[in-house]
Amino acid sequence: MARIALDAMGGDFAPQATVAGALLALSELDPAHSIQLVGRSAVIEAQLQSLLTGELAALAVHRDRISIEEAPDVIEMSDKPSAAVRGKPNSSMAVGLRLQAEGKSDAFVSAGNTGAQMAASMVLLRLHAGLNRPAIATFFPTLRHPIVVLDSGANVDCSPEELVQFARLGATYAECVLGRTNPAVGLLSIGEEPEKGNAVTKETHQLLQQSDLNFIGNVEGRDLPTGGTDHHDVDVVVCDGFVGNVLLKFYEAIAPMMIETLRNAGVDGAQLEAGLKHLDYSEHGGAPLLGVKGVSIIAHGKSSPRALKNALKAAAQAVTSGMNDMIGQRLAAATETAA
Amino acid sequence: MARIALDAMGGDFAPQATVAGALLALSELDPAHSIQLVGRSAVIEAQLQSLLTGELAALAVHRDRISIEEAPDVIEMSDKPSAAVRGKPNSSMAVGLRLQAEGKSDAFVSAGNTGAQMAASMVLLRLHAGLNRPAIATFFPTLRHPIVVLDSGANVDCSPEELVQFARLGATYAECVLGRTNPAVGLLSIGEEPEKGNAVTKETHQLLQQSDLNFIGNVEGRDLPTGGTDHHDVDVVVCDGFVGNVLLKFYEAIAPMMIETLRNAGVDGAQLEAGLKHLDYSEHGGAPLLGVKGVSIIAHGKSSPRALKNALKAAAQAVTSGMNDMIGQRLAAATETAA
Repeated sequence: MARIALDAMGGDFAPQATVAGALLALSELDPAHSIQLVGRSAVIEAQLQSLLTGELAALAVHRDRISIEEAPDVIEMSDKPSAAVRGKPNSSMAVGLRLQAEGKSDAFVSAGNTGAQMAASMVLLRLHAGLNRPAIATFFPTLRHPIVVLDSGANVDCSPEELVQFARLGATYAECVLGRTNPAVGLLSIGEEPEKGNAVTKETHQLLQQSDLNFIGNVEGRDLPTGGTDHHDVDVVVCDGFVGNVLLKFYEAIAPMMIETLRNAGVDGAQLEAGLKHLDYSEHGGAPLLGVKGVSIIAHGKSSPRALKNALKAAAQAVTSGMNDMIGQRLAAATETAA
Repeated sequence: MARIALDAMGGDFAPQATVAGALLALSELDPAHSIQLVGRSAVIEAQLQSLLTGELAALAVHRDRISIEEAPDVIEMSDKPSAAVRGKPNSSMAVGLRLQAEGKSDAFVSAGNTGAQMAASMVLLRLHAGLNRPAIATFFPTLRHPIVVLDSGANVDCSPEELVQFARLGATYAECVLGRTNPAVGLLSIGEEPEKGNAVTKETHQLLQQSDLNFIGNVEGRDLPTGGTDHHDVDVVVCDGFVGNVLLKFYEAIAPMMIETLRNAGVDGAQLEAGLKHLDYSEHGGAPLLGVKGVSIIAHGKSSPRALKNALKAAAQAVTSGMNDMIGQRLAAATETAA
């Protein structure tokens, strides 16, 4: 049973996309799950009314699993991260996260300002003991199975110790949310050999080899689309947030480019869209900010109702799998081993 | 007029691919250009004989623009970079580069051991004054036009000053080999704003802004497949060799992944291959090691005759455009301005 708070005001297409996403998620989730729509009550009520008497009338049966939590302020995309914490303490983002901090909610999802969500999540949920920084984990679709890549943008300059922490966070996430057993962790570098890479990567390689993680060694850029090396499948790929963010944005832009290129070459457009559908980010349910005590899921600013539905389902999975407790236990165990 | 030395023994498919590539290049190049095949004379002779009495018999007319330069040793792919310089002074790589150092050749192309080619090029050709390190420049195909990305793997940890040097090298290359006027230079980062990025990127942004280069600001991962931002086309993208190498290998692996995905989805294979042909690295003629005094072009280890043909044509273009002299002048001018 999960109570999931959704920032109803966050994202380029809010509140239409957020409210519709909530209804779609409830129609697919176990009936024990509920959603808290956080934001301006009147706006949310009106949007619900409009959808339930219109295109989503068939989902009216799920209305009673939705509650509305009033939050008068909205963080804009252009606001500084600090706005979420100090500037607008009654924003939908701050109110939604505070519900979780107070034990009244189990997870938070937003398609709003990412920097603000990170800052507010760190302040209101706080980090697990033993962590320096949280990391954003994203799914990369591959030929084999989706892989978890982190950090995807929360940290631009990382120490080897932080990258090892990210590996641990990512492995627990892959286990809890993707159901991978003993997830295989790869370190992104520019050659298979341990001595290949920049200074941070080489030191991280040594630390990962000494860790209790299922470390398969370095992976290269070419192993990402295939989902592993010639020798190993991979579940989790670790890199700093600069490289991860560049790669993520590059990958997101490639499918549209390929579709345009092939359509210009005369390939049928509908066939292309269908064939490359699994490369669409909206299939993959948002990116968790791992390391905070709780569940905070970052959805794309351009999230469609479908993308938000998938983010809400990922939040439910994170809650019911007990991911947060498991992260706490794994970090504590690693700290004890090191001590 | 260019005399281009080709490492006849270098690459996974040498000497068949190298000798065939030379013949194909001569059939397309201006008759004033010639090629020096460097390696084991007997092996090269036999290969020439076989091709010219077989599948490439139609190209026999170009035989007299080929000379053979004896080099008894071969650098293996598994050899350390130092092998090229100290271990095997009579390798095809060392002999080919020495021809250029002695004024007997104008350019060198190899599909052999990249680390060895870099080391030997730096020792035998030496760097232009004012440079710390050379950089490998590669073409990235985009929706608009190919862009130059550097560094693609020669330097894993770079200072802001080195990245500015790479920008200058890349701009001169784009001007000479791609014919771009006043090439637009972008800095790869994780946001458009100057304050976005890691520590090195932020400092590099400031230095580029103060430079005489046509700096258009930061570009993001999503701008690479499209060939520019919403506001500007880009000709040259600067990044360190860790990020550049990860991206290059990622990009090279994506077209095959897409083709397999779409073929599985029922799209016609031949149509796909034709549509994505311009994403094939073999269309784009090798990657120059920029910064050395001369022309040293690194071809992919898996180079086909067609890929080597394009690398040889790029070498001819680098020579006839006077790229090497222009790089020297630009670097000297920048040093004077700074002094």
